Amino acid sequence: MNGADSLLATLTGNGLDVCFANPGTSEMHFLAAIDRAPGLRAVLTLFEGVATGAADGYWRMADKPATTLLHLGPGFANGMANLHNARRAGSGIVNVVGDHANAHLQYDAPLTSDLMGMARTLSHWVHRSDSSGAIAQDAANAIAHARARKAAIATLVLPGDVAWGPASGGVAAEPLADDVELDEDALESAAQALLGGEPTLLVLADRALREGPLELAGRIAAHTGCVVGAQFFSARIERGAGRVAVSRIPYAVDPAVEFLARFKHLVTIETGEPVAFFSYPDKPSLLKAPGARVHAICPRGGDGRAALERLCERVGARASRAVVQGRGERASVRGALTPQSISEALRVAMPENCVLVDESLTTGRETYALTAAAAPHDTIQNMGGSIGFSPPVSVGAAVACPDRKVICLVGDGSSMYTIQALWTQAREGLDVTTVVFANRRYQILNNEAANMQAGNLGPKALALTSIDRPALDFVSLAKGMGVPGRRVDTAEGFAAALDAAMAAQGPKLIEVVL
Amino acid sequence: MNGADSLLATLTGNGLDVCFANPGTSEMHFLAAIDRAPGLRAVLTLFEGVATGAADGYWRMADKPATTLLHLGPGFANGMANLHNARRAGSGIVNVVGDHANAHLQYDAPLTSDLMGMARTLSHWVHRSDSSGAIAQDAANAIAHARARKAAIATLVLPGDVAWGPASGGVAAEPLADDVELDEDALESAAQALLGGEPTLLVLADRALREGPLELAGRIAAHTGCVVGAQFFSARIERGAGRVAVSRIPYAVDPAVEFLARFKHLVTIETGEPVAFFSYPDKPSLLKAPGARVHAICPRGGDGRAALERLCERVGARASRAVVQGRGERASVRGALTPQSISEALRVAMPENCVLVDESLTTGRETYALTAAAAPHDTIQNMGGSIGFSPPVSVGAAVACPDRKVICLVGDGSSMYTIQALWTQAREGLDVTTVVFANRRYQILNNEAANMQAGNLGPKALALTSIDRPALDFVSLAKGMGVPGRRVDTAEGFAAALDAAMAAQGPKLIEVVL
Repeated sequence: MNGADSLLATLTGNGLDVCFANPGTSEMHFLAAIDRAPGLRAVLTLFEGVATGAADGYWRMADKPATTLLHLGPGFANGMANLHNARRAGSGIVNVVGDHANAHLQYDAPLTSDLMGMARTLSHWVHRSDSSGAIAQDAANAIAHARARKAAIATLVLPGDVAWGPASGGVAAEPLADDVELDEDALESAAQALLGGEPTLLVLADRALREGPLELAGRIAAHTGCVVGAQFFSARIERGAGRVAVSRIPYAVDPAVEFLARFKHLVTIETGEPVAFFSYPDKPSLLKAPGARVHAICPRGGDGRAALERLCERVGARASRAVVQGRGERASVRGALTPQSISEALRVAMPENCVLVDESLTTGRETYALTAAAAPHDTIQNMGGSIGFSPPVSVGAAVACPDRKVICLVGDGSSMYTIQALWTQAREGLDVTTVVFANRRYQILNNEAANMQAGNLGPKALALTSIDRPALDFVSLAKGMGVPGRRVDTAEGFAAALDAAMAAQGPKLIEVVL
Repeated sequence: MNGADSLLATLTGNGLDVCFANPGTSEMHFLAAIDRAPGLRAVLTLFEGVATGAADGYWRMADKPATTLLHLGPGFANGMANLHNARRAGSGIVNVVGDHANAHLQYDAPLTSDLMGMARTLSHWVHRSDSSGAIAQDAANAIAHARARKAAIATLVLPGDVAWGPASGGVAAEPLADDVELDEDALESAAQALLGGEPTLLVLADRALREGPLELAGRIAAHTGCVVGAQFFSARIERGAGRVAVSRIPYAVDPAVEFLARFKHLVTIETGEPVAFFSYPDKPSLLKAPGARVHAICPRGGDGRAALERLCERVGARASRAVVQGRGERASVRGALTPQSISEALRVAMPENCVLVDESLTTGRETYALTAAAAPHDTIQNMGGSIGFSPPVSVGAAVACPDRKVICLVGDGSSMYTIQALWTQAREGLDVTTVVFANRRYQILNNEAANMQAGNLGPKALALTSIDRPALDFVSLAKGMGVPGRRVDTAEGFAAALDAAMAAQGPKLIEVVL
């Protein structure tokens, strides 16, 4: 048994049975070991950003970490943007990054770089293993951090000689102590505000947005009149008919300020108070109403369900009945493609238990509200703002949930950062329907130029926000990667394409030309 | 005038007139300023790795820096792999990275990350500008470092408030002192070895591989019997008929050791002694013969031409006549596609003054030797080993040299890291012919598994080195991005496709199915 075998035994022995891989020469011993490791599913990607995004999506739906396999500093670098998104979502991931043998580093060979420096910028835990005898324990430590309640991006650097040197078996990962505590004072002050009937918004995030905790929040709302809300972006929300609806704080500063104006209290659970996504001249960074009070009961990484249970008990809402979302009516969708007709087509087509991975920054901005009455489903959003998110995350969600339909919403601009995800979807036969909203521009930039008070954009600047010359042909791109695609330009065409996609298995792409 | 105007005035005032851009919200003032800045050409890319690779290619052919425009930490991260390659090649680049306004950073908004930490891992010079009044001087400093003889990756972080705050005009960049000196002792010992007729290899790199310095090396070789050589990868070589031929040290360790065995002396100019690309069990990291002596006349970033002039003078070769490469014969190429027939078709088709950007790791490994007798041309290679190099670098080379044909050689695996470059080629009408060698596997990994002594790869491992399921269809991928493509599977088909591409203007793609 060599170090690579011992690492793999530790991964699979601790239940980490999926690896999103983009290997290189320095990972050859790891590769060779895979055929000796029963139970590891290795999923090949053509670009590291697909691997890290897939690991993020896998975490969100499986509630356990996947492994990535990356190649030295540049391979890690290519995965960093989606690691940023994963970190912001609180996802746990174990990155295994191959590197030169320790004795070779001093010669500064071409692929040598400041891998540890790169890894530290986005990982909560980083370790360069220094012997083949130690790699199993090192991997167990990485796993412990990645799957803790306060989940970590854990990056384990695997030098060549550590992979090929002698080792013994796997090591069991010891659970880390859960050291995130509720703030008792904030809990009491929040309860007082709620009991006093003050206008209050519960701002929930992460695992507090699952069905069970939401039901508790719904009881508190029914009992006290508060509103159940979330940040504009959430890691995963269990929503739809029969579940407690969650109001979304708007993205743009002015509507967000307007939405928050009426709340004198914000009770935050697994998140902080709402802040502006960007900084703008003469607009605030903090969005709450002047004088509003923030009751930070439970920080990120804390136990939001426990916080809601305590709050429910304290305000006497245990026996209240949460108001849940009704089911929308079956409707036929016709006419022009608008944000409304697109959302309506989605609402009607979305099957029960589907996973909606939503990175439709402008076209889909109204989708959230307008799909509230869809069948029960999960929505996954981009917490980090680095675009090129939803196609890779859909890969991971589909691997985690092979029996659920995954619908990936993405803008044409965003999709092109990680379009290589389509190939992995085809290779693995993943049941992902990718909907590309092709407005042929970075529409969000046109919107934001006004918010930024940057003045009128001239022709050169507008050309930099426009991707219409040439128009991307997503049906050809999909075909090039083995995914069948179709193009629609009416609401009924979109509805029909969605229905067909939901009725069949396997990856498909729908280009929605706006 | 705001900070963005002042930054742009500094860039264009110092002759930096090309910007490879992938902007976001925080760069809106920079965008708006472009229409007020005469002479800046802004080239949009769909992925940051294309922007940074293009800046690398631009430097190599224009001998001056381009600017990139990137969006916060994740945007920089996406550009890092090709910045690594650029850094290894000694290319100068000015990265402008937009960031949140200084006052907004404390709120840890979603796109906040350790941008400075990321930038430091790959930049020689990093600065976060702290006021709109200072940005012009900050940019002048960045430019000075990027265009120094020892060229820098210079990264300038532009916070929102620095872009939108008041400022005055541009600032001229002061040249940096050239502080890299020749090693006089090494020069003398090298001369003694050469004059003594000892078996000696000149190992040249970077600007020592241009026609003029090479001619000096050729005179030294003619006079002393030494061999003119280069590392396996070089930033740019001016080569072909009528120029001094350069022997390439082989990539794999065993052939490299064999090649170097006969040399008792290595004279290194703008590079170090040859080292193995990767570390392997039981193979050496240093490749020179036992007991061979290294005469390090001129380090990276030094004046290789001056070193060769001094050496030429010292050994009395001034009046010698360099042996130059003859012109190969016109030949018709037929039969199966092999590395030989592919190289021969290239040799015949390559027009005078073309730029060959070579990232064909396995299929094209013999291309270098077999195209030595092509018409005079430049070859650009990947110095950093991070794949996904040649399509973006070809963008920059074509922008720098609009009157020259650019031929981009790339493997199917490598191409998919930055395939988005095709769209920018179409958008800008760049005269790039992309040749994709589709062997439908990461062939280099199959080769390297044996070198790594990783044992036989089982079916799961082999699946991770294979990209045949589904086969990528590059003609469809190119069509999707507006580039006309064709597929060939014979040598004559390849030759005909190359001829057609050389006879027309604009981007094309040839998929060579192996």
